[in-house]
Amino acid sequence: MQELNDTQSERDDRMISIDRVGVKNLRYPVQIRDKARALQNTVATVTLAVDLPHQHKGTHMSRFIEVLSSHGPVLGVREISAIPLELIERLKAETAHIEFRFPFFLEKKAPVTGAAGLMDYEVTFEVSATRDTVDFVLWVEVPVTTLCPCSKAISARGAHNQRGIVTFGVRFREPIWIEDLVRLVEDCASCELYSLLKRPDEKVVTERAYDNPVFVEDLVRNVAARSNKQENIVWYRVEAENFESIHNHNAYAMIESEKAIPPTSRKVES
Amino acid sequence: MQELNDTQSERDDRMISIDRVGVKNLRYPVQIRDKARALQNTVATVTLAVDLPHQHKGTHMSRFIEVLSSHGPVLGVREISAIPLELIERLKAETAHIEFRFPFFLEKKAPVTGAAGLMDYEVTFEVSATRDTVDFVLWVEVPVTTLCPCSKAISARGAHNQRGIVTFGVRFREPIWIEDLVRLVEDCASCELYSLLKRPDEKVVTERAYDNPVFVEDLVRNVAARSNKQENIVWYRVEAENFESIHNHNAYAMIESEKAIPPTSRKVES
Amino acid sequence: MQELNDTQSERDDRMISIDRVGVKNLRYPVQIRDKARALQNTVATVTLAVDLPHQHKGTHMSRFIEVLSSHGPVLGVREISAIPLELIERLKAETAHIEFRFPFFLEKKAPVTGAAGLMDYEVTFEVSATRDTVDFVLWVEVPVTTLCPCSKAISARGAHNQRGIVTFGVRFREPIWIEDLVRLVEDCASCELYSLLKRPDEKVVTERAYDNPVFVEDLVRNVAARSNKQENIVWYRVEAENFESIHNHNAYAMIESEKAIPPTSRKVES
Amino acid sequence: MQELNDTQSERDDRMISIDRVGVKNLRYPVQIRDKARALQNTVATVTLAVDLPHQHKGTHMSRFIEVLSSHGPVLGVREISAIPLELIERLKAETAHIEFRFPFFLEKKAPVTGAAGLMDYEVTFEVSATRDTVDFVLWVEVPVTTLCPCSKAISARGAHNQRGIVTFGVRFREPIWIEDLVRLVEDCASCELYSLLKRPDEKVVTERAYDNPVFVEDLVRNVAARSNKQENIVWYRVEAENFESIHNHNAYAMIESEKAIPPTSRKVES
Repeated sequence: MQELNDTQSERDDRMISIDRVGVKNLRYPVQIRDKARALQNTVATVTLAVDLPHQHKGTHMSRFIEVLSSHGPVLGVREISAIPLELIERLKAETAHIEFRFPFFLEKKAPVTGAAGLMDYEVTFEVSATRDTVDFVLWVEVPVTTLCPCSKAISARGAHNQRGIVTFGVRFREPIWIEDLVRLVEDCASCELYSLLKRPDEKVVTERAYDNPVFVEDLVRNVAARSNKQENIVWYRVEAENFESIHNHNAYAMIESEKAIPPTSRKVES
Repeated sequence: MQELNDTQSERDDRMISIDRVGVKNLRYPVQIRDKARALQNTVATVTLAVDLPHQHKGTHMSRFIEVLSSHGPVLGVREISAIPLELIERLKAETAHIEFRFPFFLEKKAPVTGAAGLMDYEVTFEVSATRDTVDFVLWVEVPVTTLCPCSKAISARGAHNQRGIVTFGVRFREPIWIEDLVRLVEDCASCELYSLLKRPDEKVVTERAYDNPVFVEDLVRNVAARSNKQENIVWYRVEAENFESIHNHNAYAMIESEKAIPPTSRKVES
Repeated sequence: MQELNDTQSERDDRMISIDRVGVKNLRYPVQIRDKARALQNTVATVTLAVDLPHQHKGTHMSRFIEVLSSHGPVLGVREISAIPLELIERLKAETAHIEFRFPFFLEKKAPVTGAAGLMDYEVTFEVSATRDTVDFVLWVEVPVTTLCPCSKAISARGAHNQRGIVTFGVRFREPIWIEDLVRLVEDCASCELYSLLKRPDEKVVTERAYDNPVFVEDLVRNVAARSNKQENIVWYRVEAENFESIHNHNAYAMIESEKAIPPTSRKVES
Repeated sequence: MQELNDTQSERDDRMISIDRVGVKNLRYPVQIRDKARALQNTVATVTLAVDLPHQHKGTHMSRFIEVLSSHGPVLGVREISAIPLELIERLKAETAHIEFRFPFFLEKKAPVTGAAGLMDYEVTFEVSATRDTVDFVLWVEVPVTTLCPCSKAISARGAHNQRGIVTFGVRFREPIWIEDLVRLVEDCASCELYSLLKRPDEKVVTERAYDNPVFVEDLVRNVAARSNKQENIVWYRVEAENFESIHNHNAYAMIESEKAIPPTSRKVES
């Protein structure tokens, strides 16, 4: 076997280094640590990449899969932070960039009857690292109800409302729970969503939304205001997109803010 | 060139004929005849297929593209019905099946201010044909507002509402306008959508939706009831999917009905 | 609570019954029984629907979620067949239709080095039932390598090849393993896919594909021929779509065949 | 009408300004100036956004649609650059950000027979502006053939190849043709794609790809090297994603390079 050409290891003379090279759109079963049940089974869509110095013709794609497979299925913040360093080691790279995107489930009780149902949220772990630094961004996508303040103010009855999606990414000092980010966002909307609502619950969420109208602008500002108050969050980006019930296009707003120290200067353990 | 192997024309001995073979996901600029402006430019995603008798190893994929290219860009019901027959001719087939899916635009005036804006609808022409018969199904996807009757009935104020999509397909006796199918569906919802609404318009659509609550069940029944009354419609299938503003899943309903003569027995010209 | 209006239970006078009404696009963690590891954790996208007789205004959407939640997470063929009957019971319906679509993982060893990696396949359980009958369709989507026989035959060197997806659905007499359907399809292509291949493996899969050219037509015929030989398969539909490496559109073929008894006449337990 | 509440214009006290607020996922028919035929009809998916100072509660969403509608359908680089300034004017904003994404068609002749067919490319105009500056990024997504150098080197016959997508964005000094960017990318791959190929053409593209193997790394480096040589390109980002025919995941590479002056300092007219 050993006489097979190793084309990837040949010299490249174009003098152009590559920022990221690797594998994308790989699906992989993982276990995520959650607050309630310790470990939650889900399926991630994975990107793994490293840089490539100008003198090397190609990376070794199979090693990305080997690094991923060498881990057990459990992916906490600690495990996720370890993978980039292993990629750097294994691929002889300077930097690594990984993304794990997966549905995350929370059991939620309906507000009146207490009937329990599972809500799903899309979560992404995005980690960039060098040998000395690690930059972790945690993204949650939280579906919510938004009810239009203008529509309520001008109409004799009713108000248009709709499902919206808030995409919220944070950099943090101390590890942060997915559940806490979801809660932060849900508290900023006209109402939160549930998978299971009986009639008394539906009455309450309808009235709650009507009593708490928010524009897409209010939604991102509410998230920003709460993030600004949390010492632990050092950077955030919040986007909201409302699937307007009166239009066939969406309303959109975004705030990005670096609150504190630049994220890439944080050491892994210090 | 002529000595190049024609593998596709070789004999196949598996004795298995193929229902459909062809090209899929081809994008192509087309012109659609509309009621208002005569010809409308848009871009279609195209499927073209024929059957393949058991004795032939393969079809000739390039001929599908040639048949499509040989047409001008204008695609009325007449032109669309001609393509399957040309495919049958050119590919020496017995049956052909084609689909053209494209966004279709209608100028709509806001209900109070009359401000004009373009609404987009997804339309599909689906045609199956033999040498003697042609079966045309016209599909429109119409986004609408739906306001929940239960939520309105039980709540002291407000009612949850959301964008829904109605997918409505019909077989017909005489050619039918896309605009008329869109109108039929929009009249069945809590309110229709607009791309441009000023405040006085927003007041009116909010109140109109509140005054016309429909379940996803009502929506498909309303479309069915209107279709049942139209002599020209001989078959229909209507699906509605509501992007519930209180849940992260959708409410769904479907009715399919063959009202009259079986569609495949209709001759092309008679 | 009990005085809240039950709008859904009101009488409807349009005299139009609804074929399917329910919930769509609900995500839910499930466990699938597999041949190798007994139980496999994954995440399903779920549709649950029943019929609605003409005299009822609406169904009770929350009961779909309750039926789903009342089950444990394990979904074997037996459990999946039970859900429609519970929906019929709980919703007072005549028919039910459910779909569970999920990624399914198989550990596969590379052909030369034996290096192990996880391959993912999209699987759908689609079940329609009445009180007396159940109709189960099992769908697998299997990505494969296809190498073009024509390109190989006419070219002095090389041959264009690409990833293709085979969508294969079967009705069966006795429960059938997902793994066996995947294997059946993979054996019909130019080569099967792997997530992890070292250089000696890559040499082998390259040469194997080159030695086994198949048109999209061959692919569906190969699957049909193998299905025809399996007593246990009573109906199948096989579609193949090749993401052609020389075109920006796809090549497509489909065969549907009812081999034996009509599927809806099969009783659940007899 | 005038007594209707203008909630959006109310004062906001949270002291949080919004980076971008506007409309997203709006579809709109446009005409693009091309080299060959002067004007080409297509359909764009549009984002329009502005910033919102901290003291204002909301933006006026309908004005985005009005600005868009006030333009004729023709969108050249000149027209596209005008829209952000009108948004700034109309919405009393400091900055605007717009995106128009649309399929763009090029007629291409097959390399041997000269048979003509239309190829489609996804193009995006992305423009950010203030009153004094405009930053235009032109993105093209070019599907190509890539043939693996390693697979070719180690295999006795054949080589795995596949469709890949190159996403190439540039900032430039003088307006640049979409066609020239597409050509630049197509010249960097193993072979370019065609919609119509007869057998003699298929022989040529098969052999050409086999004679020009490129890794995903080579593809982005080739694009980078050519971009570096073009004075007119001041910034670029090139990503390549190969839909590997031997894996169910994709190979990926990316290079981003600011070659010259920072883009936001370029004045609109000077």
